[in-house]
Amino acid sequence: MKIGILTIGNELMSGRIADTNSSFIAREISLQGWQVEIVMSVGDNFAAIKSRLHDLLTLTDAVICTGGLGPTADDITTTAMARAFDLPLFTDEAVLQGIKDRFAKYHFQWIENNAKQAVFPRGAEVIVNPVGTAPGFALQVRGKLVFVIPGVPSETQRMLPEGVIPILRRHFPQPVGHTLKQTIKTFGLGEGAVDKKLVDVNFEDLGVSVGFYPVFPENHIVLIARSDSREQAKKNLQKAQDEVTARLSDFIFSYGEQTLEEIIAAELTEKKLTLAVAESCTGGLIANRLTDVSGSSVYFERGLVTYSNEAKISMLNVPADIIEKHGAVCEETARLMAEGVRKISETDLGLSSTGIAGPTGGSKEKPVGTVYVALADGNQTVCRHHAFHWDRKRNKLVSSEVALMMLKNYLQDKA
Amino acid sequence: MKIGILTIGNELMSGRIADTNSSFIAREISLQGWQVEIVMSVGDNFAAIKSRLHDLLTLTDAVICTGGLGPTADDITTTAMARAFDLPLFTDEAVLQGIKDRFAKYHFQWIENNAKQAVFPRGAEVIVNPVGTAPGFALQVRGKLVFVIPGVPSETQRMLPEGVIPILRRHFPQPVGHTLKQTIKTFGLGEGAVDKKLVDVNFEDLGVSVGFYPVFPENHIVLIARSDSREQAKKNLQKAQDEVTARLSDFIFSYGEQTLEEIIAAELTEKKLTLAVAESCTGGLIANRLTDVSGSSVYFERGLVTYSNEAKISMLNVPADIIEKHGAVCEETARLMAEGVRKISETDLGLSSTGIAGPTGGSKEKPVGTVYVALADGNQTVCRHHAFHWDRKRNKLVSSEVALMMLKNYLQDKA
Repeated sequence: MKIGILTIGNELMSGRIADTNSSFIAREISLQGWQVEIVMSVGDNFAAIKSRLHDLLTLTDAVICTGGLGPTADDITTTAMARAFDLPLFTDEAVLQGIKDRFAKYHFQWIENNAKQAVFPRGAEVIVNPVGTAPGFALQVRGKLVFVIPGVPSETQRMLPEGVIPILRRHFPQPVGHTLKQTIKTFGLGEGAVDKKLVDVNFEDLGVSVGFYPVFPENHIVLIARSDSREQAKKNLQKAQDEVTARLSDFIFSYGEQTLEEIIAAELTEKKLTLAVAESCTGGLIANRLTDVSGSSVYFERGLVTYSNEAKISMLNVPADIIEKHGAVCEETARLMAEGVRKISETDLGLSSTGIAGPTGGSKEKPVGTVYVALADGNQTVCRHHAFHWDRKRNKLVSSEVALMMLKNYLQDKA
Repeated sequence: MKIGILTIGNELMSGRIADTNSSFIAREISLQGWQVEIVMSVGDNFAAIKSRLHDLLTLTDAVICTGGLGPTADDITTTAMARAFDLPLFTDEAVLQGIKDRFAKYHFQWIENNAKQAVFPRGAEVIVNPVGTAPGFALQVRGKLVFVIPGVPSETQRMLPEGVIPILRRHFPQPVGHTLKQTIKTFGLGEGAVDKKLVDVNFEDLGVSVGFYPVFPENHIVLIARSDSREQAKKNLQKAQDEVTARLSDFIFSYGEQTLEEIIAAELTEKKLTLAVAESCTGGLIANRLTDVSGSSVYFERGLVTYSNEAKISMLNVPADIIEKHGAVCEETARLMAEGVRKISETDLGLSSTGIAGPTGGSKEKPVGTVYVALADGNQTVCRHHAFHWDRKRNKLVSSEVALMMLKNYLQDKA
């Protein structure tokens, strides 16, 4: 079944408000196994709403509209629907009483234009609004369905699953097929390189669609399998995943939606290990990412952003002559930072970064983007050198990524 | 002039990615005084792209398309444009060389499918991409204009103002001569509240258009004045700015494009002051934001993410009995953290945060979102309590904002 989305509002045309309803509705509809064919947005304008509705009904089996159901003069969607399909309007007395009761309950002053929200085109099936005053409605026109719900995101997010989807299911009960999804997250290859490695896989023959989503510095692959039977969809998805794994295993760090820091959180928690971090070029970003995970205080003991040499010397006991001889950006300093922070924090692990984020501070020997990351566990310290070529913020981001990736690999290799 | 927007990508149909480009483009176009008539989104599908393009060209004078210009197999926009308008494709050798040079410069391995990004429909005017590999292009068809730029938001945000709008201006020169812009950044009021405070200002009579850009947790206001004379535009812009200032002065922190951390950087550098930070609930985010500014090593000495109580006690000399008695989240701890980090770092200033980012860890007395931030200068220590109600990441973000805001106000109040 093909679905169209029409979001209505002058604020969408002026860009004053970003249309978050479209992506929410598209996601929910896709998860039902239905296909979103097209999304449109128009202003609060009778002619535009009417024309776009007719276009959408030509292209799809059902149209979901949001916005323009409020009490003010520029809320014209209900009247626009009535005009578009040549239907008279009527007031639903029960709905009107419900709105009045709601006003009384919350001690809001009753203003007559709120009665507008109990007016519907003839034949409308009312959709209850559990979190606001304006109800929505469904219409059957030309054997197709048109839904109208408010544009307030919190109301859309309740009324779509609770009101719209059940009515859609009632009208389109036949098994429209099963949809299964698998996200695979990679790091270390550009989008083009990921694509090239997969170019010989015939996803179409497997009944699987593939999407590439760069989320700097990662590249995510999303596989979607559709089939009449759930078993078949599962089989196809697995096969597609195996093909991806065979070609990209060195770069895959997650099957699913987990972030890198969430994977690390699960590993540290399960293995009952604690961690401290000493950062220079990443400037607190590693600690910030680690503490984005709820419950991180269980394993994350502390983080030191030792930006000055003095801080590296006094807090981490990096010998001054090492920094003098080799500079703050070198393998020795990275190692000593990881070992130092582990020691003073009395944690199982110490993770460090030192480098030149840029755009200034580079030299011929150590250009901007030179980064060392190190991990110490008390028995051994591993250190890796990287050379990045991004701007300051992205150099910081990719440096935090290689540090966390080093930690993740260590944890997963550990029995 | 009427403009249509067409965003292209399967990820928009599946709802995997929210379409933020549409609202950005709509805002920028509105600020130019042009009218966005309709926004559409379709998947990476030849037939859909072609049909929607034809629909849009019927309704508007120019169409701005984003997405589907990457190197991968599902990036079909360029070919779809060529097919829609029956134009042959050609490789622009200069653009190809530019892409190859970019790969060489950054030491990326050249992969042949990147050459796709140098292919254009005949007659295309290339639009330079200053922040990525895929250029965009403009086509003239049926006396109308079609623009295609990449869908990566950071690229759209550069290429629209720098590439698309100048070409639009060339084709649709405005009768009025001068355009002046002023960004005003606010913090502390929601978008709706900002709007409400300005509702009685008649920007139209002042010849000024106004746009609202929520950039969590800030709200930015953009004023654009247009007039035949530069003097008049300047006068109108100043008048509009005065009206905004009169209503929002308590919440304005910047007139211009500078970020909060850049304002702080300028103040600290000018006043030759140094800073150290001790963070708990913000988990490194304050340090990360401060070090996003190039040259921050001049004033940022170190940051400590003292996540555990032990770290607060051993590194910052917060007495154990204070934490025992009042907990780690309290005014006393915040003050002692700011004083402690200032002292051990031997800096002029110490800034701290402690709180409960959530979603767990709250109690009846100290619910999730309770945050204390403190600033110590050796003579006095100021501390402020806040109660936020966001999710974990946004609680961290708004906490870093109030800490930095406190620092900024201190620096600007200082003679």
